[in-house]
Amino acid sequence: MFANRIENLIESPVREILKVIDRPGMISFAGGLPATECFPELDVSSVKSAHLQYGPSEGDDELREQVAASLTERGLKTAADRVLILSGSQQGIDLVAKLFVDRGTGIAVEAPTYLAALQVFDLFGAEYISYTADQPETGNARLTYTIPTFQNPTGHCYNEAQRQALALACDRSGSVLFEDDPYRDLVYDDCDRTPICSYVRNTEWIYQSSFSKVYAPGLRLGYLTCSEKLFPHLVRLKQAADLHSCRISQQLILKLLQANNGRNQKLTTFYRQRRDSFDLSLTASFSGIADWQRPVGGLFYWLTLRPEFAIDTREILKRSIAAGVAFMPGEAFYPRGVKAVPSLRLNFSHASPQAADDGLYTLAKIIRTACEGRV
Amino acid sequence: MFANRIENLIESPVREILKVIDRPGMISFAGGLPATECFPELDVSSVKSAHLQYGPSEGDDELREQVAASLTERGLKTAADRVLILSGSQQGIDLVAKLFVDRGTGIAVEAPTYLAALQVFDLFGAEYISYTADQPETGNARLTYTIPTFQNPTGHCYNEAQRQALALACDRSGSVLFEDDPYRDLVYDDCDRTPICSYVRNTEWIYQSSFSKVYAPGLRLGYLTCSEKLFPHLVRLKQAADLHSCRISQQLILKLLQANNGRNQKLTTFYRQRRDSFDLSLTASFSGIADWQRPVGGLFYWLTLRPEFAIDTREILKRSIAAGVAFMPGEAFYPRGVKAVPSLRLNFSHASPQAADDGLYTLAKIIRTACEGRV
Repeated sequence: MFANRIENLIESPVREILKVIDRPGMISFAGGLPATECFPELDVSSVKSAHLQYGPSEGDDELREQVAASLTERGLKTAADRVLILSGSQQGIDLVAKLFVDRGTGIAVEAPTYLAALQVFDLFGAEYISYTADQPETGNARLTYTIPTFQNPTGHCYNEAQRQALALACDRSGSVLFEDDPYRDLVYDDCDRTPICSYVRNTEWIYQSSFSKVYAPGLRLGYLTCSEKLFPHLVRLKQAADLHSCRISQQLILKLLQANNGRNQKLTTFYRQRRDSFDLSLTASFSGIADWQRPVGGLFYWLTLRPEFAIDTREILKRSIAAGVAFMPGEAFYPRGVKAVPSLRLNFSHASPQAADDGLYTLAKIIRTACEGRV
Repeated sequence: MFANRIENLIESPVREILKVIDRPGMISFAGGLPATECFPELDVSSVKSAHLQYGPSEGDDELREQVAASLTERGLKTAADRVLILSGSQQGIDLVAKLFVDRGTGIAVEAPTYLAALQVFDLFGAEYISYTADQPETGNARLTYTIPTFQNPTGHCYNEAQRQALALACDRSGSVLFEDDPYRDLVYDDCDRTPICSYVRNTEWIYQSSFSKVYAPGLRLGYLTCSEKLFPHLVRLKQAADLHSCRISQQLILKLLQANNGRNQKLTTFYRQRRDSFDLSLTASFSGIADWQRPVGGLFYWLTLRPEFAIDTREILKRSIAAGVAFMPGEAFYPRGVKAVPSLRLNFSHASPQAADDGLYTLAKIIRTACEGRV
């Protein structure tokens, strides 16, 4: 009775985990939740009754202009009339998948990559080709999906040569480049963040980002820009999806962008401290158990368990949650069919430093205990 | 380079019209815009920083409970855990289409029907079977889409027998009933508004409505409930589409629902007056040119031109807009491939009574003039 695509619609493991992270006392490394204490004050005084009416599918003009200016500033030349306001960047993935993905369409992805992007691509029947930053072979993929800056889940940031190489690979193969850049403003150390789309010469491209990480996810607001030919299609798909995005959210974000009150700097200082203290706690609890790179931005650590501790972390998740610690097993970030991978993703931004330290200690202990049980 | 479905993604005629209705001095009968003077005051005092965080895909619990109570009150028994908050009811159409529609899937629709529903069904490759309130033959359609209460565009309201007959037809054929009910609270005369889904005995069903018409479309908020088996699938599709709906909007709507300050009655009094004065103006300008039924609720008049004035109104739309009057040609509301139909839809809620009177006079004159040119 259902459409064929529903075969591919599986319960997301994240949903199961997100259901428990609100439990009192739970230390959550699971979500990509920004720290609640960093949320902005909302200035609702500028919301007028005109903003309660239906609005344009593309988004409100003032906000589109602000976004276009900011995109141009970060090296991606565009114009307000090629900016589409989204109901969060998750929606951009839905629209792009509708535009390009038939059953069997090849998409080049990093493995691991953002699990909710895989969920959408799966729904529309995608097949995957996997590439790496060092070997950007996109094969005959119609679409190439990338999170080059503070990747989810690995935290990896492409250097300049890797960025140019991926753009070149897409130009050569004609694969459409879809760059997802939600974390770029959460930068803690010096690194290259030039949009890869700015290096593209002739293939089509889409670049999207989000207001969720720097401002507030509850407002559900993001944006995309793209090569000229794609824009009218994406606007129509947006219209069919939800007519337009919440206009109160658009006004609130516009005011926050215009205030330009050093918020980014305060935020990155706060998150940098969280990362640094998380790093110390990781070293204290996980030395000898796992390896990791300190991320230069974003919200995540990606741990790879050493061979002697290389368990399937899905098997300890229940025990860990029962002990008050939630995390994301690595498997969720791979295209379907992946076997166990000895990796896990830890968010470092949400828990307080003390809670994080306690949680990491508990988690390491659970992993050690699980390995003692192995012969 | 695009997915096959993009062949079916045509520029909506509405978009073209909506672009011009903001022009100063334009008298618009085109959109389904609620009257701006009826928008509520927003009480933002209850918005807490917790509402700025990510939230559940299903929607916030308090709002879901409020909606479930209101659904049960209107005769459709459901529970909060089977209520899904939507980013406007347009999103419900997208989710339901994803759940049921493959290329070639049959959908039973009234013709004419809501054009943006056709747009979504087209995108996923639907084929159409058309039925009427008096002959609810849904054939082998997998899905039956209906707007039984103040239908868009005709304004028709099903009586009790028609409601039961459509439910029975779906029960017999096994077609899933998808009831779209955004206008139900805009009721001006006595009539039956019992949800058809409440008559269903064994087929699966989805019922959706919107906060756009009674409160504010700019908040982009609606909701659905459905038979048990469908709910988990629709939640996953919602998660893949935009994670969850704007939580500020959810809080604002919750407060408005809780205030329960006689808003509905004031609103219907206002709109009833608009309808009545529109009716007088119609009679003054369109007697002898067109026929219509006075709608007992909703936002629209549906005019059928008499044989001697039966022109394709798409051909006079430009002239009409140039003269400062926008309307919707009837063809947009029929499944693709329809030839000219001598009908047009007029929204009566947005223009002031004086502007509406002027606009109808102008429009009638343009139609008369166009017909003089015919031999």
